[in-house]
Amino acid sequence: MRLSEIGEFGLIDNLKNLCKIKKRDLITGIGDDAAVVKSQSKNYLLTSDMLLEGVHFDLSFTTFYQLGYKTLSVNISDIFAMGGKPKYFLLNLGIPQTCNLQDIKEIYRGLNEIAKKFGIAIVGGDTCASKKGLVLSGTLIGETGHAIMRKGAVPGDSIFVTGPLGDSAMGLELLKKPGTTKSDIGTSLIKRHLMPEPAPLKRTAGVTSMIDISDGLLIDLSHICDQSKVGAVIYKETVPLSKELINAAKKLRKDPLEYALKGGEDYLLLFTSPDKIRKDAVRIGDVINRGRYLVDSEGRIERFKAEGYEHFKNK
Amino acid sequence: MRLSEIGEFGLIDNLKNLCKIKKRDLITGIGDDAAVVKSQSKNYLLTSDMLLEGVHFDLSFTTFYQLGYKTLSVNISDIFAMGGKPKYFLLNLGIPQTCNLQDIKEIYRGLNEIAKKFGIAIVGGDTCASKKGLVLSGTLIGETGHAIMRKGAVPGDSIFVTGPLGDSAMGLELLKKPGTTKSDIGTSLIKRHLMPEPAPLKRTAGVTSMIDISDGLLIDLSHICDQSKVGAVIYKETVPLSKELINAAKKLRKDPLEYALKGGEDYLLLFTSPDKIRKDAVRIGDVINRGRYLVDSEGRIERFKAEGYEHFKNK
Repeated sequence: MRLSEIGEFGLIDNLKNLCKIKKRDLITGIGDDAAVVKSQSKNYLLTSDMLLEGVHFDLSFTTFYQLGYKTLSVNISDIFAMGGKPKYFLLNLGIPQTCNLQDIKEIYRGLNEIAKKFGIAIVGGDTCASKKGLVLSGTLIGETGHAIMRKGAVPGDSIFVTGPLGDSAMGLELLKKPGTTKSDIGTSLIKRHLMPEPAPLKRTAGVTSMIDISDGLLIDLSHICDQSKVGAVIYKETVPLSKELINAAKKLRKDPLEYALKGGEDYLLLFTSPDKIRKDAVRIGDVINRGRYLVDSEGRIERFKAEGYEHFKNK
Repeated sequence: MRLSEIGEFGLIDNLKNLCKIKKRDLITGIGDDAAVVKSQSKNYLLTSDMLLEGVHFDLSFTTFYQLGYKTLSVNISDIFAMGGKPKYFLLNLGIPQTCNLQDIKEIYRGLNEIAKKFGIAIVGGDTCASKKGLVLSGTLIGETGHAIMRKGAVPGDSIFVTGPLGDSAMGLELLKKPGTTKSDIGTSLIKRHLMPEPAPLKRTAGVTSMIDISDGLLIDLSHICDQSKVGAVIYKETVPLSKELINAAKKLRKDPLEYALKGGEDYLLLFTSPDKIRKDAVRIGDVINRGRYLVDSEGRIERFKAEGYEHFKNK
């Protein structure tokens, strides 16, 4: 079905039917000037992320379903990074002429897949024609009693991550390799790039600071150091790596640790806590007074800088 | 200053300094994974709107300042249309290489201008490089004790608008006329298109339904009729027209009423109420059981359809 046949209001009617999660505290969702929501918690959390064609994705190497999924999952990751519960999502869509109704429905199928998993209601947004490629701009509202900030880390705390790092960056590299086709999209590393799976930290008591790993471990840890006014030591051999990453790096004759330290978009959580051991995360370092260091298994030490992906910077 | 010199994080630092409205209930604004806000009202309101280069604006005929102003003002209009108070704004910006730091600062100067007027805090967003033109995608969070929906109009209610209609549509037409230059941007009708000025309805007691006029009176009134399951009669001669619109239409040999009925983007309020007279709005019609009619000063009657601007539809 071409969008020109149903028009904007026909499209909105279609989308309304695709967004049917009922929530007791949602008074009005799509279809009025704004969504109306009953406030349940002491605080609400607001986060926004945008995916642009040609910058964040290439339609030859991702499906519309995956795009919808990722647009919401990167926002969920930010709410989890504050210790919050994601609740309401708004999606602004700029749709080029090349997209038809089925494509848009696929975006919403991906959205709904992950929305259902976490009980999120899609409550609004704006749809408009785009002359310059597909635009997905999402805003997610979460709630929390107590928000965990980037500031709050204290010397003596341990540094934890909630899973193996670098998979997404390796997935992106594999995706960009000449010869990759749409049939490779399901491969595990690539899938971790195209459909990141954020997960909340269930036990947040005692967590002193937290951030999600979106720009890369070294950059995101530097944000915690900057805002908490502390330093950090990372023990290289403790940084968790997946078997898939190790194997792929071996084939490419690259160091898998480089992907784990500098690769972005893992959407796992990095946090600090006075705990020394946790069942739900891996301890990779210590918060210290000042300075930022990497230490290898033989005790050799080097300083690190905030390196990873940054928009606008020349490379 | 080129953005490639300061990078994404340098840009975010600049923007943080440009967004300094303090609010007692804002715990964290820009600079963490999500903004944190203390909930003050029973309900919060969520609305989102997007402006795309080449679709909603043309950089030869609008300033960056005006763009920033409009991005927020169209969202404010949606919150006012629910009877709410706008509170927190997030802006996602897709920035093409042709824009420099000064341009982005101008966008934020426009944003801040209208944010200050209504006590809105800019609390977050996403900035990224765009390969396909400038993208401004905004989400505004408001609060209200009692939300006024599109549904709720009852036969016997009067229909009101809060100001003269059609100015923005005429402004857009003048803007598109060959020979228009950037120096015409300040002209009153054009300014009403480029920098719409939403205003809240101060007294909402007794208001049964409300919407903002963004797509045009006939379309937006049709939304109220659809959702309230009622009909409407509009008395043509009561629809308020500005002197500027009447004069401009005369020059173009057009009927100014056409602009008022079908022109969009006035961002005034259309509402229904059992009141017969109000000081803050003009009565233009009556809610009836069914049917949608326009009546002229001689009592001639015609049906109307929801006509105005709609995305995707072929014209």
